[in-house]
Formats: sequence, structure tokens, C-alpha cells
Amino acid sequence: MQKKLFTLGIKVRDYECDMQGVVNNANYQHYLEHARHEFLKTIGLDFARLNEEGILLVVKRIEMDYHFPLRSGDACEVSCQLERISPLRFGFVQQIIRTSDQKPIISARVIGTSINRQGRPFLPEVLDKQFQPE
Amino acid sequence: MQKKLFTLGIKVRDYECDMQGVVNNANYQHYLEHARHEFLKTIGLDFARLNEEGILLVVKRIEMDYHFPLRSGDACEVSCQLERISPLRFGFVQQIIRTSDQKPIISARVIGTSINRQGRPFLPEVLDKQFQPE
Amino acid sequence: MQKKLFTLGIKVRDYECDMQGVVNNANYQHYLEHARHEFLKTIGLDFARLNEEGILLVVKRIEMDYHFPLRSGDACEVSCQLERISPLRFGFVQQIIRTSDQKPIISARVIGTSINRQGRPFLPEVLDKQFQPE
Amino acid sequence: MQKKLFTLGIKVRDYECDMQGVVNNANYQHYLEHARHEFLKTIGLDFARLNEEGILLVVKRIEMDYHFPLRSGDACEVSCQLERISPLRFGFVQQIIRTSDQKPIISARVIGTSINRQGRPFLPEVLDKQFQPE
Repeated sequence: MQKKLFTLGIKVRDYECDMQGVVNNANYQHYLEHARHEFLKTIGLDFARLNEEGILLVVKRIEMDYHFPLRSGDACEVSCQLERISPLRFGFVQQIIRTSDQKPIISARVIGTSINRQGRPFLPEVLDKQFQPE
Repeated sequence: MQKKLFTLGIKVRDYECDMQGVVNNANYQHYLEHARHEFLKTIGLDFARLNEEGILLVVKRIEMDYHFPLRSGDACEVSCQLERISPLRFGFVQQIIRTSDQKPIISARVIGTSINRQGRPFLPEVLDKQFQPE
Repeated sequence: MQKKLFTLGIKVRDYECDMQGVVNNANYQHYLEHARHEFLKTIGLDFARLNEEGILLVVKRIEMDYHFPLRSGDACEVSCQLERISPLRFGFVQQIIRTSDQKPIISARVIGTSINRQGRPFLPEVLDKQFQPE
Repeated sequence: MQKKLFTLGIKVRDYECDMQGVVNNANYQHYLEHARHEFLKTIGLDFARLNEEGILLVVKRIEMDYHFPLRSGDACEVSCQLERISPLRFGFVQQIIRTSDQKPIISARVIGTSINRQGRPFLPEVLDKQFQPE
């Protein structure tokens, strides 16, 4: 079952660029996280509220391929698509594309899980439901 | 002569929040900088291009009053108004307001100057022109 | 009564530098915060533990003068001295000095207060005691 | 040929922690980068100086496994070991270990290359030499 693609527009902020004049490597991870959290809201999951309720969404693994850097003045689109990895693990396939010419900037795969405050796996029903046949 | 007010909308990103659950103090400075750079573009000054040409816009002083914190999910408006401090120094009067209820979040005053690579004062003409009577 | 001076050594990390090749303005605020929190530990106050106990140390105002920028490879010393502003407000007078030649980098004054989760002023006794004549 | 292991101690700074009370995922990438740059200095390569000379060290791929989070007050050791991937690509195998109990925090593999300002591959001799039989 193919999941719907979520896309978020982000404009480079100058403080995100480092001495090479390009967005610092770690900041793309910020872009990816922000897009995931905005995506999760669209399916009814609020990272901050879950956190207050004692349900922690955590990243277990991240893989990022850096194709081309973004610079000051650039805008990009950060996409996010959900995939099931295992009963308790879910993945986000994410791309960052430069808006002006659709040039690929980053390809990423982020694997997460959900735990409670005791560190036990705890998958919110609404997240589980994303993977049910409709 | 009253300068036009520039305003930029910014949405809080979760990674900008610290363990108190609010936007970390230093990140408001990022918001203010981003709004200043976007404002400067509207008057024809590009921070990154100036930098490549050897003209460095630098902050000499910043004053920030913290009225109320922003949280995950909040959006804000960051304003920016130019004022002349001296022939070679210019100020930015900036406010951050929570979008939902116009609650004041930050009041700031940022004093900057412009130097060349040798550290000598060098005010771009276009910046100087902002302060001429029209 | 003169308070003891606390000093913390910090080495510039390359990701803290922006496209001008110098430490980004907002990152000095990170240095100042880190030095304050390390200083507070020396008088028995742990920012994170206080936070868990529902006591929030918050910044109300910050003033920073930027004298000279730090670059990749630089090390600095961040100092911190406590001063009483009012019964419920305390100040930190802070300096950042480049280690190699003691060149002044930043002079700052940070005014804070302490509140509980209801937003009511709540000054921890150990902080109050700092201002008693010994 | 086994390369020497480089290790750098880093203490968690409170602003690096997010609303979950743990170091934000992207900040581990900052730790890894800082350790790589410090390691490179020990073999005679200065990231900032190379950058000024027009030689850009760039990350092409990063893989990070998140084993356990760091919290306020934690210290860690970030290690770095060089491996050759191909004539023009080199890898860094990196670990982050909690200092107090040697608990594994992050395992990472970072693949980089070196290019000149025209985007052409350009491997500094000193980096190339790291892979020669001694």
C-alpha cells in the first residue's frame, strides 16, 4: 500500500550556512525532522503533545545521502513518506529538492519507534492505523 | 522620517525548543537575524552577496527583552524597522509577536555597522540612501 | 559584596561559524548560557534538575556588546559573575575573552528570574543565599 | 592496515537538549563533525584553512544508529577512525560513548570526499598519505 506523500517548503536561513557558504550538514537533519513533525500533525500526531503524555517518538537510525548543497537564498521542498519496517518500527523516506530547478539535494531514510517513559515500545493507535489496508 | 515596517512570519520548529519546552533563548536571535536579512533583501541588500564582495554587515550590540516564551506549534511575526544611529551605525528595532493573539514575545534593538575585509567602516550606498529624506 | 568570578574554557567548533567565517552572533549566546549553567552547578543549582522539579530559571533581558569575532581554531574563556538586581531578579555579568591574547570578544549582561510552573516568582533558597553577607 | 583511533571528550550543553530532555538528534551530527575536524588537525589538515585555499571537504553520506540518548550533565567520548572507500572517497567510522559507564550512544559511518571550487575531486596529498603502507 503506497502512502501519500507529504511536502513542506523551507527557505534557507543565512545562519544555517557555514564557512563553506552552504547549509551545514547537520541542518538538513533539522529540515527533515521539521518536515516529519509537520507531516505527523496531518495524521493527527503532535510530537510535543505526545511527549507531554509520556509517549516519545524516537529516531533509531538515519541514513542521508548528500547530493548537492543548498546556499543562501535557496528554497527547498522536503518530502516525507511513511513505510512500515516492523510491528514496532516505522520508516520515513525523505527527499530534499531545490525548489528553483527540482535538483535533488538530500535523500534520506529515517527509522523510528515509539516508546513510553519506561523505555517500553508503545505505538500510538493512530500511527498503527496508517499501515492498515483502507 | 519614519521607516516602513517589515514583517516576517516564522513557525516554531520543534528542534528549536529546549528542555523547558519553549524556544531556546538563543534561537530568538536566529529569528531576528533571519528577519533582518529578509528585510535587507527588500531594500536591495543581500547579506551573502555583500559578503562575497567583501562587505561585511556586523552586529555591534544587541538588546533583547524576553516577555513570554514561544512553544511548539506557535507561529510568530518578526518585525524590523531601520533607524540611523550615527553616520556609520544603523539600528534595527525588532519585535516578535505571537500570531494567534498578538502577545508580545520579544522586543529587541540590534545595532550594526558595515565594514570591508580590512575591518574599515564601509557603508553601502543603498543602505545610506535609506536614511535620506525622500 | 563582590561575588567570585567563574570562568569556563570553550573551543570554537567549526559548525558554529557562519558564511563570514566567524562564530555566528547567536552562538555566543549559547556560550554564555552554557557558562551560566556550569557556574550554577558550582553553587549547587542544576538547571535540568530544577526544571524537573518545576522551577524554571528564565532570562528576562540580555545585552551583548560584540567587540571582535572568534574564528575557527580559536579558544575562549567565558566568565560569569552574579549580581543582585532586585529581590526576585538576578544578573549575570559575563565576558568572553580570546584565550590566546586575552582580546575582549563579548561583554554581556543577562538578567534572569526564577518562576514555578504557574509562572509565579520562586527564588530557590540556595540562589537567595548567594546574596547574603557571609 | 589499521588506522589509529582518535577520541575527543565532549560535555553535553543544556541548549543541545530538546523538549524530550535529551540531546537533539541533529546535535550528535555536530559532535561527530567536531571530532572529525579535530582529528583531521592531528594529521595536518585544517578544515578552515583548506576551505580558504579552495579545497572543500564534503560529506557524501552519513549513517547513524541511535542506541541511547545523552542528557543534561552527561559527558561523552567521540571517536573517529579513518578508512579508505575508494581512490577519491574516504570514510570515518565513529562512535559516541557515554563517559560515565562506556554505554554506546551513537554508531556512525560518514563518507566524504574532497573537491576544489570547480567541484572537481581533489584529494590533498596528506590525506592520501594516510592510506599508504608505512
